[in-house]
Amino acid sequence: MTVLEDLPIRDELRGQSPYGAPQLDVPVRLNTNENPYPLPEELVARIAERVAEAARGLNRYPDRDAVELRTRLAAYLTRTCGYAVNADGVWAANGSNEVLQQLLQAFGGPGRTALGFDPSYSMHALIARGTGTDWVSGSRREDFTVDVDAARREIARHRPHVVFVCSPNNPTGTAVEADTVVAVYDAAQRAARGKGALVVVDEAYGEFSHHPSLLPLLRDRPNLVLSRTMSKAFGAAGLRLGYLAADPAVVDAVQLVRLPYHLSAVTQATALAALEHTDTLLGYVERLKSERDRLVTELRAAGCEVTASDANFVQFGRFDGEGGAHAVWQALLEHGVLVRDNGVPGRLRVTAGTPEENDAFLDAVRAVMKENER
Amino acid sequence: MTVLEDLPIRDELRGQSPYGAPQLDVPVRLNTNENPYPLPEELVARIAERVAEAARGLNRYPDRDAVELRTRLAAYLTRTCGYAVNADGVWAANGSNEVLQQLLQAFGGPGRTALGFDPSYSMHALIARGTGTDWVSGSRREDFTVDVDAARREIARHRPHVVFVCSPNNPTGTAVEADTVVAVYDAAQRAARGKGALVVVDEAYGEFSHHPSLLPLLRDRPNLVLSRTMSKAFGAAGLRLGYLAADPAVVDAVQLVRLPYHLSAVTQATALAALEHTDTLLGYVERLKSERDRLVTELRAAGCEVTASDANFVQFGRFDGEGGAHAVWQALLEHGVLVRDNGVPGRLRVTAGTPEENDAFLDAVRAVMKENER
Repeated sequence: MTVLEDLPIRDELRGQSPYGAPQLDVPVRLNTNENPYPLPEELVARIAERVAEAARGLNRYPDRDAVELRTRLAAYLTRTCGYAVNADGVWAANGSNEVLQQLLQAFGGPGRTALGFDPSYSMHALIARGTGTDWVSGSRREDFTVDVDAARREIARHRPHVVFVCSPNNPTGTAVEADTVVAVYDAAQRAARGKGALVVVDEAYGEFSHHPSLLPLLRDRPNLVLSRTMSKAFGAAGLRLGYLAADPAVVDAVQLVRLPYHLSAVTQATALAALEHTDTLLGYVERLKSERDRLVTELRAAGCEVTASDANFVQFGRFDGEGGAHAVWQALLEHGVLVRDNGVPGRLRVTAGTPEENDAFLDAVRAVMKENER
Repeated sequence: MTVLEDLPIRDELRGQSPYGAPQLDVPVRLNTNENPYPLPEELVARIAERVAEAARGLNRYPDRDAVELRTRLAAYLTRTCGYAVNADGVWAANGSNEVLQQLLQAFGGPGRTALGFDPSYSMHALIARGTGTDWVSGSRREDFTVDVDAARREIARHRPHVVFVCSPNNPTGTAVEADTVVAVYDAAQRAARGKGALVVVDEAYGEFSHHPSLLPLLRDRPNLVLSRTMSKAFGAAGLRLGYLAADPAVVDAVQLVRLPYHLSAVTQATALAALEHTDTLLGYVERLKSERDRLVTELRAAGCEVTASDANFVQFGRFDGEGGAHAVWQALLEHGVLVRDNGVPGRLRVTAGTPEENDAFLDAVRAVMKENER
């Protein structure tokens, strides 16, 4: 039998494992920041209708430029983020992962460097590696906020071609102030050779924040990109629809590297149907925000150290005893609750679920903490 | 206003244009090798049904490993290609372009070289470039077949890490003999450093061939990959569903570089519905094969030089007069027929459409040839 190690794969892939959270069959799954609310049945029917319409022309290639979808996404951003963008300043792909991959293919790649402030969304580093971009891990303060002075020093030293700022940050939940993003942007432009550096604000969890979107920062910043997703706020992780907003020139740039016809007609149709139901879906977001705030309050009451959260998840700890956070992860699993160990020392991450799921999680945390006291 | 040239994109992208056939609004579009037959209404209804089912769980991530879909694709290959494969030897992605991109990320990339026999599917070279892989253009004979001796010399000289063999070849329509693929495979293994070289047989048009699939060559060849698509034979270009068959170790390898959850739940549901209707769709393939053969015969009767075709398109020429093939492309467009100028000197490519579309095309060719005689 042939095994992976027998094949002529790239050297740096040898010994690696595929990325991905363990998918375990557990009563309460709060590990992948999914939205716990299924799409309303009215929207399911509309999706079936729009997809059937698309399926009647499925023998033809899809709209390569997804113009209708980008127009609707632009209208959504304009309405909810306090800054007007048009279709020519919006781009969509199969999940924000593919958006970020396209950005790194165009602005990163071999001989170039990307920098992010860790701990953050680990796919930033993985997609950098997958595109041959060197990765530099910048730092955060003890409280997981970005330290502007430290960021300036790190940027000046490494002169990155691409800088990632995740806000609200995954897995910590930390929002980044607009002033900090501006400082990072200016530092990255100063440090860069040539035409400057791309700064990507990953706002995958933007709709859950207490703060407004950073979209208005796009004004007069042609090297700034905001990335977003329908996976979380639109309750559509299964759809794989990520998008970006930026200067239209950035959209021209990703079109040089995107695979032609990357976005299927059924994906476009489904996303368009979901956008018709924006207000209903944003209603679920409000429920989740209040559940998220309840999780923060009750975890603190239970004696946990909790990182302030602007996302649909909460980072909690500290578990510095024997076995560290992973032992607590395992103990919670034994209570039927799956959370995520993102490798942040002493911390775990829990997704805000339905009130019932959150109750089950909080009960499990209290039980585990009591067991650990013994 | 910012323009693309002002941005810090990679140097090799400067001055480039996005890949893609011109999409013009013309009565008869025979330029992108689409299947002219819309999906039957029964299948459209089944797609709506399966997508609605998927949409009810759309708040959750899709099956990351697309196990049901890979199982059905494996069964389809086993039934139609004379060689048994299982789900663990099949992988699916958003179009065969993404399959090829994943293969090049794992087996090509910076410091590595890929070789193909040109003229061939131009995306092979473009995806190589997009993944930082050097591209070497191998040769074909005057009749567009692959010359085994020349191929051996080119492989020995360049020692590629990845070799592409497109069969039936796009844009020429030429099938590659099994013996030739075996010779190329053996030469590539001999020339390679380390663990050998990957050989990718692109069988996107395999179902239209007069010859059987090359799938049985996978036996005892762990570095051989067969890539396929549902875009053509399944009449689903809008779906973007490509797949590969190979040793299960190759599937393990692409899982190291694939973006997690790359294949949406709606794509998986739609593809599964289409696979339920395989026999109906393969019936359309039979019609297209006979129309393709008719195009070859009638183009020859009209005085064209026609390359033997095993695909759903036909390469014809030679147009060596003033303006070359492009002048004829333009003249056909003026008769309301859009074909493709792939840049092969003196040749154009026409997709087999419906009988009515093909008649309109043949009338236009005869008219243009008459005009050119004057």
